[in-house]
Parts: sequence; C-alpha cells; structure tokens
Amino acid sequence: MFSTLSPGALGLSLDHTTSIDLAAQHGFGGVDPDLEFFRALGSRAAVSEHADAVRERGLEWGMAGLPVPLDAPAGEFRDALVELPGSLDLLRSAGVTRVGTWLRPMHDELDHRQNWRLHVGRLSLVAELLADSGLRIGLEYIGPKTFWSTERFPFIHTLREARELIAETGATNVGLILDSYHWYTAGESAEDLEGLTDADIVSVDINDARADRERDEQQDLDRRLPYDTGVIDLEGFMGAVHAAGYTGPVKVEPFMKSLAEQPVDEVLGDISARLDRAVAAA
Amino acid sequence: MFSTLSPGALGLSLDHTTSIDLAAQHGFGGVDPDLEFFRALGSRAAVSEHADAVRERGLEWGMAGLPVPLDAPAGEFRDALVELPGSLDLLRSAGVTRVGTWLRPMHDELDHRQNWRLHVGRLSLVAELLADSGLRIGLEYIGPKTFWSTERFPFIHTLREARELIAETGATNVGLILDSYHWYTAGESAEDLEGLTDADIVSVDINDARADRERDEQQDLDRRLPYDTGVIDLEGFMGAVHAAGYTGPVKVEPFMKSLAEQPVDEVLGDISARLDRAVAAA
Amino acid sequence: MFSTLSPGALGLSLDHTTSIDLAAQHGFGGVDPDLEFFRALGSRAAVSEHADAVRERGLEWGMAGLPVPLDAPAGEFRDALVELPGSLDLLRSAGVTRVGTWLRPMHDELDHRQNWRLHVGRLSLVAELLADSGLRIGLEYIGPKTFWSTERFPFIHTLREARELIAETGATNVGLILDSYHWYTAGESAEDLEGLTDADIVSVDINDARADRERDEQQDLDRRLPYDTGVIDLEGFMGAVHAAGYTGPVKVEPFMKSLAEQPVDEVLGDISARLDRAVAAA
Amino acid sequence: MFSTLSPGALGLSLDHTTSIDLAAQHGFGGVDPDLEFFRALGSRAAVSEHADAVRERGLEWGMAGLPVPLDAPAGEFRDALVELPGSLDLLRSAGVTRVGTWLRPMHDELDHRQNWRLHVGRLSLVAELLADSGLRIGLEYIGPKTFWSTERFPFIHTLREARELIAETGATNVGLILDSYHWYTAGESAEDLEGLTDADIVSVDINDARADRERDEQQDLDRRLPYDTGVIDLEGFMGAVHAAGYTGPVKVEPFMKSLAEQPVDEVLGDISARLDRAVAAA
Repeated sequence: MFSTLSPGALGLSLDHTTSIDLAAQHGFGGVDPDLEFFRALGSRAAVSEHADAVRERGLEWGMAGLPVPLDAPAGEFRDALVELPGSLDLLRSAGVTRVGTWLRPMHDELDHRQNWRLHVGRLSLVAELLADSGLRIGLEYIGPKTFWSTERFPFIHTLREARELIAETGATNVGLILDSYHWYTAGESAEDLEGLTDADIVSVDINDARADRERDEQQDLDRRLPYDTGVIDLEGFMGAVHAAGYTGPVKVEPFMKSLAEQPVDEVLGDISARLDRAVAAA
Repeated sequence: MFSTLSPGALGLSLDHTTSIDLAAQHGFGGVDPDLEFFRALGSRAAVSEHADAVRERGLEWGMAGLPVPLDAPAGEFRDALVELPGSLDLLRSAGVTRVGTWLRPMHDELDHRQNWRLHVGRLSLVAELLADSGLRIGLEYIGPKTFWSTERFPFIHTLREARELIAETGATNVGLILDSYHWYTAGESAEDLEGLTDADIVSVDINDARADRERDEQQDLDRRLPYDTGVIDLEGFMGAVHAAGYTGPVKVEPFMKSLAEQPVDEVLGDISARLDRAVAAA
Repeated sequence: MFSTLSPGALGLSLDHTTSIDLAAQHGFGGVDPDLEFFRALGSRAAVSEHADAVRERGLEWGMAGLPVPLDAPAGEFRDALVELPGSLDLLRSAGVTRVGTWLRPMHDELDHRQNWRLHVGRLSLVAELLADSGLRIGLEYIGPKTFWSTERFPFIHTLREARELIAETGATNVGLILDSYHWYTAGESAEDLEGLTDADIVSVDINDARADRERDEQQDLDRRLPYDTGVIDLEGFMGAVHAAGYTGPVKVEPFMKSLAEQPVDEVLGDISARLDRAVAAA
Repeated sequence: MFSTLSPGALGLSLDHTTSIDLAAQHGFGGVDPDLEFFRALGSRAAVSEHADAVRERGLEWGMAGLPVPLDAPAGEFRDALVELPGSLDLLRSAGVTRVGTWLRPMHDELDHRQNWRLHVGRLSLVAELLADSGLRIGLEYIGPKTFWSTERFPFIHTLREARELIAETGATNVGLILDSYHWYTAGESAEDLEGLTDADIVSVDINDARADRERDEQQDLDRRLPYDTGVIDLEGFMGAVHAAGYTGPVKVEPFMKSLAEQPVDEVLGDISARLDRAVAAA
C-alpha cells in the first residue's frame, strides 16, 4: 500500500499540478487523479502523456470519484450514463484503476429494502459498464449514528451490510473503501475485518476521533488526524489492512477546516509522516 | 368494529372475571381473552362454557398475546413450539380468533436484512401452525424514533415495512395491529392507510401524544389518552379504519401510570366513552 | 376494453397506414402504434396530427414495444437509455400510454436470484424514466415448459412471480400483459386472476392451444386462434378480465404462419369477430 | 479426507455392527453413524462406549441424516423439533459431527422465491439448534435436469445457488455435500469449485454417469461407479476437493440395484479401492 495526497479529502484547494508537485516533495506514494484536469487536456494522448510524467515522478494514482451518482433521480442517473464513456476513456488513458463513492446511510422516502434494491440495481449496471475499462469501484459505508439516524429510514452503515450489497451485485470489480472513522463509529473491531483480501479493498482512509465525545455522539464532519487522540485503535485497524495484503492507496480525510489555515507544507509534511507510520505498521 | 377492555394495555391489574364484569358494566363491546385463566379452567369443555358465558353478556373476544416469542434465541423459540398445541387448543375452545405481538424495531447484532430473514422464517412457520386453529396473527410496528434509534440496527418501524414482511410470509392469516401512536410517530398519514381492508387489520389501538414534544422526541411509553391533546389526527386515522371496513377490536394503550391510581370505574367510564367516539366516527 | 389490430402479433406484414385502414374497416377498436412510423414523420407536430387522425377514425392506441431491452448486456442497455428520450417524445406526442415487453423465462448464466435482481434494477429505472411521459409498462410472463426448461436456470414463468417482480420495483406504472396461452401453459386458473384490477393489467392477449398436445408439451410458437380448439378456458379467463374492470386493448397472437397465406380481409374479419366475442363476454 | 462405508448409499441392507465389521475389514477409513442403533442402545453412556469401540477399530464417523425434514408441512417440521433434543443428545454422545440432507430441486406449489424463504427460515433455525451440539449440516444440491424440470417451479439445483442459500442463513455450521454426479449434471467445472475451503464442505460423494446418455438426459437414480465410464471428470473434481483442504468423509452413492445382488465382500473391496484412488489423488 502507499500514502496518497488527496487535496479534496484534506479540504485544501490545490490545483492538480500543484498537488503532484507537493505530493512528490513531501514523499507521498501517490496522488488522486483529477478527471476535470484530464478533460481539459483535450485528448487521450495528452492524458496518457500526463500520466507518464506523474509516474516518472514516482507517484501512483489514488482514487477518482465515481462519475455516476448512484442514488440520484432516474433522469439524472441516466444523464450520467450518457456522459460515462467519455469519462471512462480519460480514466483509462491515464491508467487510473480505482474510482469510489460513499453510501448515503439513510433516506426519507425509501425504506431499507427499497433503497437496497435501488443500490443493487444501479451498482450492478455501473460496475458492468466500468469493468471493460479495467476500473474497480470502491464503496464507503458511513458509520456515525448522528448521521444515519437523521432521516426516517437508516440504510447501510456497517461493514457487514456493505459487503452483502457488494456480494449481491455479483460484480467482481466492486470493493470497499475502509475508513477507520466509520469502522470505529459503526462499533466494529479488528475481528470484523478478518478474512478481507486485497481484492475486497479499493481504498483506505485513516482518521482519529474527538476524545471528548462518546462513540454515538461523534460527528461525521468533525474528526481528528490519525494518531492524534488515540480514540480509534489504528494499530488494530492497520494490522487488519496489512493482514489483508492490501496494495492500494491510503489517505487522510479529517474534515478539519483548520488545515486550510495552516502553511500547506507544514500540513502536508505532517500528513505524510502520519501516513508513513500507518503504511509501515505491521 | 367494537371497543375492547384490555386491562393490560391500560396498566390495570384486574383479574379476568373482574375484567369481564367491568367491561359489561361500562358498555365495552369486547374484552381481551386470558390464556392463563383458560389454562386454569382445566378442560376444553370448561373453557368453552366460560366463553359462552362471556358471549351471553354481549362481549366479543379482543386479542390474545401470540404464545411464541418470534425473535427469541432458537432454543427458546423451539420450546414455545413444543408448548404451542396446548395453547392453541384452549384458544380454539374459547373461540378466540386473534392473537398478536409487536415487532422490536431495532437489534444490536442482526442487521436489517438478517433480522428480516429471521422474522420471515419464524413468522411463516408460526402462521402455518396457527392457521389450522382458525387464528389470525396481528403484528404491531413500533414508530418512535427514540426507540428504533437506540441500537446498532434499526428494523421495521413503519407500516410499509410491516406490510412487506407480511406479504413475504405468504400467509393469509397475518395482518396488522394499527396503533395511531405508531402511525403518528412513524410520520404516516391517512393516505398511507388507503387500500387496507378488514383482512389486513387484526387489531386497532388509539392513543394520543404529548403536546409538548416534537414527533421525533415522543417516547414509546409516555402517551396520552385518545382525543386528549389533539396532537394525533384521530379523525384521519379512524376515517381510514372505517374506510377499510374493519370489524375487529379497538382499544386504548396509553402507558400512563396515573390510570392505576384513579378509581377504576372512573377510568373505564372515560375510556369506554373515548372508544365509543372512535368506533362511531365516520 | 377494446379489440386491437396488432399486425406483428398476427404475423402480417402490413404498413402502419394500411393497418389503420384495415382496423377501421373490420371494426377493431384500436390499432398498435408504430414507433418507426412516428420517427419517420419527422416532428412532434406531425405525430400529434397523425394521432388525431387515427382517433377520428374511432381507433384507440394499443401497445407499443418497450424501447429498452431489459436483459441486454450493460453496454447495450445503456445505449438504449441514451436514445430513450427521443422515443418517449414521439410516444407522448402520439398520446400512446402503453408499452410492453416479455420476460425471457430462462437463462444459461444467471440463476433465478441473479436474474431477478437484474430485472428489478433495470425495470425500476426504466419505469421511473417512463413515468414522466405518462407511459405504463406491461410485462408478459411466458408459460410453456418446453421453453422455460431449455436452459440451466428457469426464470419467471408464472403470474405469481411476475406480480412479485412488479411489486418489488415499487413502480406504479408497471403492470401485466395477460395472455391466455401463458396462463394455460403455466397451469393457472381463473382463481389465480382474482383480485386483479384495471391498474394491474396493461394488455390482454387471447389465444387457444393445440388439442393434440398435453399442457407441458405445448410449444410457445404453435398456438391456435381463440375459441378454436377449446383447450383453453377462455370463458374463465375473460370472465376474470371483465371482473378486473379492465379497460385496455385485447389482441390475438397465434403464431400461425398460415394466416399470412390467407386473404387478409378474411383473416381480419375472423380475428375481429373472435375479439368481439371475448370483449362482449361477461 | 477418508473413505467411508455408507451402506444406505450403496443400497445394501447391512445392520450397523455388520457395517462396522465390514468397514474395518475392507480398509474403509470411516462408517456412517446409525441414529436408530444409538437409540436402541438406551443410554448416553452406552452410545459413548459404542463410539469408543468404533474409534478403536480405526474408523471415523461419516455423516448421519439430518433428523429434521426441512421442507415438510409446518406441523411435521414442528414435531421433528420436539423430538430433536433426544437425537442431538445421542449424536453428541457418539461424537458425530456431521449430519446432512438434500435439497429437493423443484416444487409444484412454492415458486423459487417462496421456497427460498422457506429454506432460509427453517435452515437458520435448525442450524442454530444444532450448533450447541457441535454439529455441522451438509446440504446436497441435486443436478439432473430430468429431476428439477418435473414440477412447476424448479428450485436450487446448482452449487452457486446452494452457496447463496448457506450464506443467507448466516450460520457458520452449514456447508455443502459435494457429489460429482450433481456437479456434472449441473454443468459445472473444476473452476466452479475454486475458493472452497474445508469449512465449506461437510461431505463428498463420488459417482460416475452412464456413457450412453447426454448430460441433460442423465437420471438421478441411474448412475455408475466412480472411474467406471469416465463421463465425469473425477480428476478435476477430486483435485478441487484436495485443493480445498477437505478433511471429511468420501463415499459412493451409485443407485445401482445390481450391487445388492453381488457378493458383499466383492462389492465393498471394489468400492474401497475406488475410494482409495479418489482420496489419494492430488
């Protein structure tokens, strides 16, 4: 596995070329692809050339966003399918292999079973469309109870449910985005991660939680940097990720606005070191 | 439909014969059967005779408790099946046709899908075992968010989910226990009740809610007497029940400890009048 | 309900304008719309004008084909979604309200549950996309065992399964295409049709079966004209359709090549009379 | 894994003590337990002593029949649950760890989804009841099309469906009975067995098929001895079983009446040698 600079996940407004420079400078192993940047390059050849340059700087691609909104109204979902081939073309030209999205853990209209059918149906279709481009889809379940309990029908908010959803799609190119924050807030332990293999994991996020809140009071958008408070058992989490033989990107997604106010080199040096610690741990 | 005296639902400790006397005195149309009382009578013939006497006083049977704990550990569930024929024999001898239970709206171990399978499997089996005795099973969904959100996995807590569960059992002798309190706390309206028929409803409860709490703050065990605060649209609720052509028992289940401290005749006179208003409304 | 001329179902190569003329001449109540013809008209206004003319001749629209192949490979399904808005525009301009397709009753790769998920997912999406155009989708289950038993995994081939599929989509604009031939070969009776309403039925086909074959030996593409052999209980079938309050098109789909070899006026006169008999029956 | 003498599977009427003697004489590694024999012994202590004696002769226990009919009418299923503790007690006293049953691959009343729910519900319950006694349940899917196509609703008849059923029960003590005959008639290959582990397999049967019939014409009760005709790829099958690290019993179940007419020592010598070949193969 390798550390990845994902400016969006850090809440930093860095353009793609700056991100690449900073990722290389601060010793990250990878950087997130930027579909809009690829689109602006104007041709497959230019995208491919750009990707070569990134690779030459020792950086691997992290994960792009899934360019289809899984739970949008049918018309919007259809429109995204119309646009999809162009995006896939660019991602394939760049050699990107991972895209991801999160699963909204509640709904005000669709009950658990209706929402399940919606996700199985849409996800199966999109997975089949992406398979030909060599793309894997990562799904992130969202753990905080302060989030999933806010509408009439709670939905997938645990690892077990996410794995069953993936199994039901029958797709071999769909896996998990494992985030220590969701694993912790979902009340899960290292034991729950047993049996996972590299094929089951598309991306890994590590974050810590506030020390002054109980698990069920934690907020999705108010986290801490990994190894900060020690609330989350990152040793147990990363131990299981290592045991799975995971080979993909690891990033931080703390939702801390304060990061954007600090000197960027200071922030990235710190993040990179924390990720190195996680990647090295065994 | 007819008003029913259910001492348990009112939190009153009345023995069965007293309940029958009071139900007749205060003009209730029915009274809940008491399986323990039947058992103590010692024979089918005695139970049958007792039931005749109740009927002669102008009272119909309300609903008995389902004598099988649907979501108990397997061993306990099996033990209840062992005992079941004896209970069915007594209920049949008494001419009871309705038994009911509530659906626990959350679980700490079983996720929504696992719990669904458990309920479909157990309920199908029990429904088939009860069908030969001419018994219908009523299921009560529980609406308050302050209840369903208290464990890791929220479960059935709305009419729509309860109806889908019933449909999946394939049983024709399973229906709903409709409680205005759950209907209100689940965020449902009269429209949600459209299309129901007498065959879909096994029992009806009417209650009101506290006026000083928002819907999502209402507590399952802290309600108000019907037509008390006006928080719950009992006109809309009972209108839909009438439209369904419902012919069964209607009772009150307020979970108000204060009732047990008032003179019982005063309480029952009041309850009976409130039920008459509901039964008469069209 | 009204009799409909569907040249395709009769195996006749009639262009759309000829079909309209013949339908009017032979006293049919409706005629099938022709999407290709609409497309060739070139504009919404022209389609609308054409539809007015058809209506002025006393004809209603039957059912068009669903312009999306539900079980095609993902890429092909996506391509159909890309083209869909144009087709919907034409159908809406013509005032067509019914489109339909049949469910392939077996699969060599997808087992029953996988195929079910595929159909639920695709159908839900397409139904939502069609709802805005005021279109209802009819689904025809295919009954002959000589067809559903020919691949590894039999799929939906009965009314009950088709109804459960429709219920699971949650869509209110999906219903059944009832064909007496599938109803007979599926081993169903008038009792199985009880409880259906006009909202559940999008189209009705009436056919008879060969008298020299057992039910399980009947071939999907070798049928008889309605009321021909009397093998199929068309009185029971149409009685149930009447009881449902059905208001839509009724056609014949005999898969008899001999029809194309007879004088067309003779054939249509005969078909129209047989449909009149079915439509009149009560 | 070890070869097992299962008189019932061979169609031989041998009493339990004779079976044990013959199994030891002919070099089998195990013998099937006999619940009726255990019951006749009259006490746990006697059963335990008997089991010790069998073990001292170098024989392991094969698999007993599951003492609950999974798809019986509800009343019959309940009755079996009433009797279950006694049977479990005997099996536990004997140190038996494997019981099994086959899945009827079709139904005339229950469609695939209804039958699925019945099996998930019943199997989950029974598995939980058996878990405390340390018993694993093996399920045998039945492959021949000449069998699953004989009623209105084909059901589980492939490995994939059987595995999904087991997964849905959520039980960790349910696995497969793999029979090369069903694997062949279901159109499966060694690839389909990839990924299985010892925990997934409760028992293994090896049989060959008639050489004068196509796969879809093979009859469930007309097979051949393993390695006889070479129709079934037993090398591929046993290679996969070895790769899974399987440690349990292997037996033959040829449904050949002729075996009962031959000298029993001749038959068992032959069967034992064929099983040795399978067990040794890698």
